[in-house]
Amino acid sequence: MINDNWFEEKSYFEQVKMGWKIKEVLHTEQSKYQRIDVVKTEAIGNLLLLDGKTMVSEHDEFVYHEVMAHIPYAVSRNCKRVLIIGGGDGGVVREFTRHPDIEQIDLVEIDQRVIEVSKKYFPECTIGLSDKRVNILPKDGLAFIKEKKDFYDIIIIDSTDPEDFASGLFTQEFYSDVYQALTSEGIMMNQTENPFYDQYGIKKIYRNMQDIFPIVQSFNAPMSIYPGVFWTFGFSSKRYRATDIFSQKRLHMDEISRNLKWYNMDWHKGAFQISNFHKKMTGL
Amino acid sequence: MINDNWFEEKSYFEQVKMGWKIKEVLHTEQSKYQRIDVVKTEAIGNLLLLDGKTMVSEHDEFVYHEVMAHIPYAVSRNCKRVLIIGGGDGGVVREFTRHPDIEQIDLVEIDQRVIEVSKKYFPECTIGLSDKRVNILPKDGLAFIKEKKDFYDIIIIDSTDPEDFASGLFTQEFYSDVYQALTSEGIMMNQTENPFYDQYGIKKIYRNMQDIFPIVQSFNAPMSIYPGVFWTFGFSSKRYRATDIFSQKRLHMDEISRNLKWYNMDWHKGAFQISNFHKKMTGL
Repeated sequence: MINDNWFEEKSYFEQVKMGWKIKEVLHTEQSKYQRIDVVKTEAIGNLLLLDGKTMVSEHDEFVYHEVMAHIPYAVSRNCKRVLIIGGGDGGVVREFTRHPDIEQIDLVEIDQRVIEVSKKYFPECTIGLSDKRVNILPKDGLAFIKEKKDFYDIIIIDSTDPEDFASGLFTQEFYSDVYQALTSEGIMMNQTENPFYDQYGIKKIYRNMQDIFPIVQSFNAPMSIYPGVFWTFGFSSKRYRATDIFSQKRLHMDEISRNLKWYNMDWHKGAFQISNFHKKMTGL
Repeated sequence: MINDNWFEEKSYFEQVKMGWKIKEVLHTEQSKYQRIDVVKTEAIGNLLLLDGKTMVSEHDEFVYHEVMAHIPYAVSRNCKRVLIIGGGDGGVVREFTRHPDIEQIDLVEIDQRVIEVSKKYFPECTIGLSDKRVNILPKDGLAFIKEKKDFYDIIIIDSTDPEDFASGLFTQEFYSDVYQALTSEGIMMNQTENPFYDQYGIKKIYRNMQDIFPIVQSFNAPMSIYPGVFWTFGFSSKRYRATDIFSQKRLHMDEISRNLKWYNMDWHKGAFQISNFHKKMTGL
């Protein structure tokens, strides 16, 4: 994984690789759930690795975190309660804390060590965790979601790839539990992998979502540290379509977008106009 | 470059790398201008390398070639003559040949060996080169463009990175020559690198374009084999904006889009709704 001052990740049946030159290994531990490393790279700042897979870099974390939070928020009509499953780096929480009318932000992260390590090496990500609306819950997302009914307005699945203990986060059963946990106008967001190297069967993931939600849409945003970079995301909704930004939120979204690094409403609307390739691979 | 059955390309001051596992080296030669290699990969089919840099893969060539050709064609009102500078693989030519009203397609490729090698290893790309409207001109694009005035409706700069003999294709002087060679409603398209690792000063490239053209816009499309994948492209125009698709072409574009792998008009319009990051890096 780390050799000759390079971190390297092989993916897609070990046929493709990406790597970054590193200055220093800042942290290494084996938590109860996974190996956690932080390396300092030349090109993209600090980089968090879980079981040798890239998770967050200082250089590009804003893309993932902004699109995951602000797209569903802009569409929602009355968002009071948000749940994030995974996402122990805190980046998605930080973005939700920009919206004053949200009352409760629950972060269910099974591995509390990810949060502690992120606090030390990614302080810009974790800054929102001290907001008094935030509850950090050291639980298994799969079990937690089953106990909630008609409760959250937005649920974010901030997961790793559909393998090992994250595989349950891509099943029809799980999406059904999420649907139950959402209020009547609820929205679920999730990452749905890179369609250029379709190792995990993206179309099946979307079919699972479509079997549960009446509205399923997809967009892409570049994840510079994820294998192959071209990344798709799912928007699953009970009532409103992804491009139907709530008119009463436009002024607020316009205002906060001035301080955002990626998101703006024009990009949001354009992103859901997907290519033929994107349609084919998702089956949408 | 090739080691242990892997092709690997280091970029951005040797701080980032991408690689693909290879089955076989199919071709290697030193032409008058550059080293030309073709490798057969596990994940992305045949891959063309010029001086060790990834140029074209069978797996994803459709993205670059379709967006370069169909975006300006859909916007143009009366496109009769097209010039492609570089692009010896023939992919952009192939896409333009889908439009029956185009009368002349000139391909100025300085290195004829790229064309010959592409014919052998990328036959799907070069299929358009036998179209009777196509003229292959073994010339230096920089000199060729100076001789043309008010002649082409669309000019495509299908170049490598702004270094070595391609650096002249990113200067204000060159853009001025292109402007002169274009008709009064002409459009120039070019690739403008990856803003996440801004080795070449993307903002300066866009300023050079803006100093010459009244309309300069930008979009991105994933180039899975280029360093960092997230790729920006420039649309420089004398009269029409990129999202102003010609109403009389909509039926035709809709029809051909059914057979295209990437392009459709909705994607075209959405792609120019760019993120804050994209705006900042291009200065647009």
